[in-house]
This record gives sequence, C-alpha cells and structure tokens, in this order.
Amino acid sequence: MTASRDTNFRKSLRLPGVKPSPALPRLSSLLDRSSAVLTVKPRVSVFGTWGHTADCRPVGQTSHPEQHALSALDCETKQDCAAHMTTLAKAMSKFRLAVVQLQVTSVKADNLNRARRLVKEAAGQGSKVVLLPECFNSPYGTSFFSAYAERIPGESTQVLSEAAKENKVYLVGGSIPEEDGGKLYNSCTVFGPDGELILKHRKIHLFDIDVPGKVRFQESETLSPGNSLSMFETPFCKVGVGICYDMRFAELAQLYSRRGCQLLVYPGAFNMTTGPAHWELLQRGRALDNQVYVATASPARDETSSYVAWGHSTVVNPWGEVISKAGTEEAVIYADIDLQYLADIRQQIPITAQRRDDLYAVTCVQEGSG
Amino acid sequence: MTASRDTNFRKSLRLPGVKPSPALPRLSSLLDRSSAVLTVKPRVSVFGTWGHTADCRPVGQTSHPEQHALSALDCETKQDCAAHMTTLAKAMSKFRLAVVQLQVTSVKADNLNRARRLVKEAAGQGSKVVLLPECFNSPYGTSFFSAYAERIPGESTQVLSEAAKENKVYLVGGSIPEEDGGKLYNSCTVFGPDGELILKHRKIHLFDIDVPGKVRFQESETLSPGNSLSMFETPFCKVGVGICYDMRFAELAQLYSRRGCQLLVYPGAFNMTTGPAHWELLQRGRALDNQVYVATASPARDETSSYVAWGHSTVVNPWGEVISKAGTEEAVIYADIDLQYLADIRQQIPITAQRRDDLYAVTCVQEGSG
Repeated sequence: MTASRDTNFRKSLRLPGVKPSPALPRLSSLLDRSSAVLTVKPRVSVFGTWGHTADCRPVGQTSHPEQHALSALDCETKQDCAAHMTTLAKAMSKFRLAVVQLQVTSVKADNLNRARRLVKEAAGQGSKVVLLPECFNSPYGTSFFSAYAERIPGESTQVLSEAAKENKVYLVGGSIPEEDGGKLYNSCTVFGPDGELILKHRKIHLFDIDVPGKVRFQESETLSPGNSLSMFETPFCKVGVGICYDMRFAELAQLYSRRGCQLLVYPGAFNMTTGPAHWELLQRGRALDNQVYVATASPARDETSSYVAWGHSTVVNPWGEVISKAGTEEAVIYADIDLQYLADIRQQIPITAQRRDDLYAVTCVQEGSG
Repeated sequence: MTASRDTNFRKSLRLPGVKPSPALPRLSSLLDRSSAVLTVKPRVSVFGTWGHTADCRPVGQTSHPEQHALSALDCETKQDCAAHMTTLAKAMSKFRLAVVQLQVTSVKADNLNRARRLVKEAAGQGSKVVLLPECFNSPYGTSFFSAYAERIPGESTQVLSEAAKENKVYLVGGSIPEEDGGKLYNSCTVFGPDGELILKHRKIHLFDIDVPGKVRFQESETLSPGNSLSMFETPFCKVGVGICYDMRFAELAQLYSRRGCQLLVYPGAFNMTTGPAHWELLQRGRALDNQVYVATASPARDETSSYVAWGHSTVVNPWGEVISKAGTEEAVIYADIDLQYLADIRQQIPITAQRRDDLYAVTCVQEGSG
C-alpha cells in the first residue's frame, strides 16, 4: 500500500475533515481487493464528539480480531459525521452483476471452457458478481446426473475457482451434480475473488412435478436434498442462494431477506410449461415481497435436448421490475445493483418496519448442514 | 324437507348403491341453504367394509354436536366408495364469485343503494359469494374517515346484512370506516346468506407510504390497526380476508392458506402509482405461492377525487393466471371458483407437501382480538 493510493482512497471517499486513523490503509487495501465487508456505524463518544466507525473485515473471517481493520473517525459536527457515513456507505452501494445464460451441451469440457470464457467477458465489463446457470456442466436430466457428477472439489469446481481468481469476481457457479458418500446432490458452489470456496448450497427442494401431458420430472428419483440455508457476504451486500425449484418456496427468500440479504440468486432451469407461466412471476414476487434484487440464470434453450430449458435469465429490482432479461440463446446479461435505490424503496414503502411481528413470524426451524 | 326433495338431492349427487342414513335429509337441507361446511372423509370399518362419512355442519356452529348432520354411507366396494366421495366433494367444489367495482361517491346513501342493487345483480347471475371494495360507503382519505365512520352494527352494515339475506349470498362487505371506543378502524364485515354477521376484519397493516413526487398517504394519522387474522367458512371453501395494504404482507396469505383457506379476498384501493406497479403482481404472487384463488375489489376510478383508485378489480386462479379483470369503471365481474382445479394444481406441483417444515415455518405469534 503506497501513500498515494491511500490518499486517492480518501479522496475518492471525499471525507473532508477526517483524521486518518492507523487502520485506514488496511481498510483501503481490503476495499480495493473487493473481498471485505464494510459496516459503517455511528459512534458517539462520552465527551460529546461525533464520529463513526468503519469496520471492514475480510469476508468469512469473523473470528480473528487481528484480521479486522477498524477505522474510527472523529468528525467536527453531527452533520459532518452523517455526511461521512453516507459517503462511506455509498462508496460500496453499487456494483455490476452479470448473468451467464450458458448453452449447455453434453460435452462437459466444452461447457467448462465456455463458462470460463464468458466469466472473463463478464468481468471485462466491470462485473463484480457473476452467476452461472443450474446444471451448467451437464445436460439437465435424471439420466445424466450420475454420469456427470463430481466430488467437490473436483474438475468443474477447480475451473470455477480459477475463473473467480483470474477475474477477481464473486462467482456463483450455477450448479453441478455432486457426488458425496454415495449420494447425488444438485449443488451450487460460490467462489470469492481469491479463488477460495466460500459456500456450497445443495438444492433444498427437489423438483418433483407432474403436469399431465405437459411435463413430468422427479429429481428425487436420483438426487438427495440439501438441508441448509445458504448465504454469503460480499463487500457490497449479503447474498442468498437457492436453486431453481427452491424459488417456489417463499419462506426461503423471506428468511434470507430477514437475515440481511439484499440480492437473491437462483440458478434455475424452468421448462416450456412452467417457464412461461411462473419463471418471471416468481422472481418479481420474491423481489417485491422482500424488497430485494433477484437474479436467475437459466441454461440457453436447446430444443433438441430431452428437457428444454425456458431460458430468459432475468434480474428484477426491489420495486418488482425486470431490469435485465436474456432471450433464449447463449448470452451474458448485466444489471447494476444499486443498494441505495433498494434503501430508498424500503423507505418509501416501509413494509420491513411495518410487518406485524406481534402477529406472525417466519422462522428457521433448524440450521442443518450438508 | 319433503321426501321428493330428499330423493332429488340424492339423485343430484348420483350415488348408486348408497344406503340412505337418517342424517341425509338434514345434510340435504343444509347444503340447499348453502350455509354449511361439507367434509367428506374415508371410513373403513373394522369388518372390512368400505365407507365414508359426510360431515355437514352449519357454518360457525362447531360446538353443538346436535346441530351436526352426519351421513355415514356404506359402500359395496372400495371403488364405489371412492366414486361416492369424489361425487359428494365435487357437488360443492364449484361456485360463482362476483366482485363489485363500485363507483364510490361522497353521498353515502347513494353508495349504499348502488351497492345493494349490484349485489342483487350479482346474485341474479348465480353468484354465491359477492365482494365489495375497500371504503365502499365513503370517499377514501384520512379527512373523510371520521365523518363517514359508523359503529358496527350501524346504517351501512344493516344494508349489507339485508342485501346478503335478500339474495342468499355470502357478502364480503368491502370495508367502512368503523368507530369504536373513540378509535377509528378500516373494517370489513362479512354476512352469511341468512343476514347474520359472521366476521369482522380490521385492517391489520395500516397504509403509510411516501413515494416522493408520486403518492404520500398515512392511514395511521387517523386509524388504529386491527390485531387479528380473519377467516370464515362457506359450504364451498374457507375464505381469508385482508384489506388492501394487508396484501403486501405475504405472511398473512401464508397463514390463511396453511389453515385451509382456498380463496383470499382483499377489498383494496391501490392508487395510480402502486396500482400499475404492484396490484396485479401481488395478487398473482399470493395465488401462485399458496395455490389459492385470490380476488380483489377496488372502487371504480374517479379522476376527480383526492385519492384516485386504480380500479382493475381482479380474480386470479391457483396457477397464477388472471381469470377475470375489470377496467376502471363501475362494473361487476365474475369468476367461477373451481376447487377441483385447485386440487389438481396442488397435485401437479405439490409444493404444499414439499415444504421443508424441518427447516422453516410461518407461524402465528398471537391470535389477538379486535
């Protein structure tokens, strides 16, 4: 960390009158690496001076205080202090999300190579978080899961780890069929900008539906369900993860948003029956009800495959509006996630504060693992 | 009850081989009055004969066994029994719902008269349940609530009671400003086909929003909130009641549907900002997430009023499709509620059974009153 970079950092935050603390360079360094959580809180000293703390800690490292960087900033007036806090918070309140609608083929190596190339393309457009589709390394179907399944770590997740690190992005690696202890799971792995695995979500709700004459699919014939909610932190916001059919269960999204997630991501492969009927409606509903951003990543449509995915990967804002949407073919779509806009919506229609906690509750019964 | 009516009743249910039980005439009588709950359950005797019970009880009367009519029917084969049960259940599985999109004016007597006339019109079209809009007897606005408020019972609810009885319908009387103990509430009353008040719902979530430059409204400046969930039974299905802003809170709909409601009704008056953005989306989301029918009743649009209602009263089916929708003007719209279709949807996409009760729950914290 050079002095000039530190100066630039403080300049970029426009903090007039701030007395630099010893922790500031470290704060700057972490933010620069996009791998930390920034929390800004008011701090009023007993001597009546105004101030705030900017607590910046590396993602996933909460138990080692020495790894935290704490910037305690004294301000001359209450107004100064409020302005600094707003500026600090805003500095991390916007980021670009990319959704890769991959054309999944039966050739695993080909899927991995194109995924890697498109992650690079997405990062080149300034994306900080990149989302791949459900079952991105394998055709979707109970007859394929076993043949394409891998352990984690394994070939496919190694590619994801490298792609995340090479491009310094948070990579939500869609899902792959995972083999573990003789069982198969539909699993999503998330890698940080340093290439480390930071989350594994196993699809909680298996896709077992039977719409006569339209579509029948029974994931539970070959897959086992996961038993955990899955959230991860980024420097921008906390993110909740579900896979496809998980999106039909409102409780999951409610719990994620109650726990501070501002973006929900669902790699998913709806079909030609449920796609036109429910794909967008579910996303818009989750976004509006919880006042969060929602992003889905579908495989591109392949009319020749046994299970034809709907495509139309989508990003919805907290007002319930579609702000980005793919067609049916392979594509990368982008959305600028604006957490200040999210905060504005929550202020305008304050349902979070208005919920009648005295009458009802959505609760987590058990936090299992696996 | 004459012998011939009883015979006709049994004929209409097409129950070949059924041995009439002493309870059957009473069952018939109750069903004829459309004021009972019919529950059909399998009943396998210890002697291995097949059968089922048709438990038919008057609405709201659960504590007096002598008022129940129980028809225990023995069948010759398991197939016979299944067929009888299906027939009995189907006999009550379809009914017509009407939504009255009333043009609300500042003249209370005029509002009441037209509401009464349109309820009659709806009943004339075969409707068994009729829904009026929020604040149907008064302009919507904090400056009007006090002047138009009434006690319950009072002038407006007397009209509702008479309209329900005259037309033998379940009348969900939208809402009126209610005065009670020096406080004002936004209250929905429901009357049975005999004119009896069977439910009062006070709006739980008060409408306090502020979208700068678009719409600001603070119900809490003049109104007090209700503290109870509100459901009522009909011979067709159980119905959950919310008022307008209550619809934004998914938990209410979740609790209603978990407790057996298959139709949710929301008298509501969205506006020209939230109407186009959220009115239909919220209804479709509630319907799809809970696989229930959802109906909303808005006042007709009046561009000259201080609060301009969006209109577009709507009925949505459990697949999330709009099946009936008004324009902006005064109108009665109809929808045939098909509980067999609802059951089919729940079988095809069985999210009710697939919910992970081991991971999460939506619970009622407190069943208050008032």
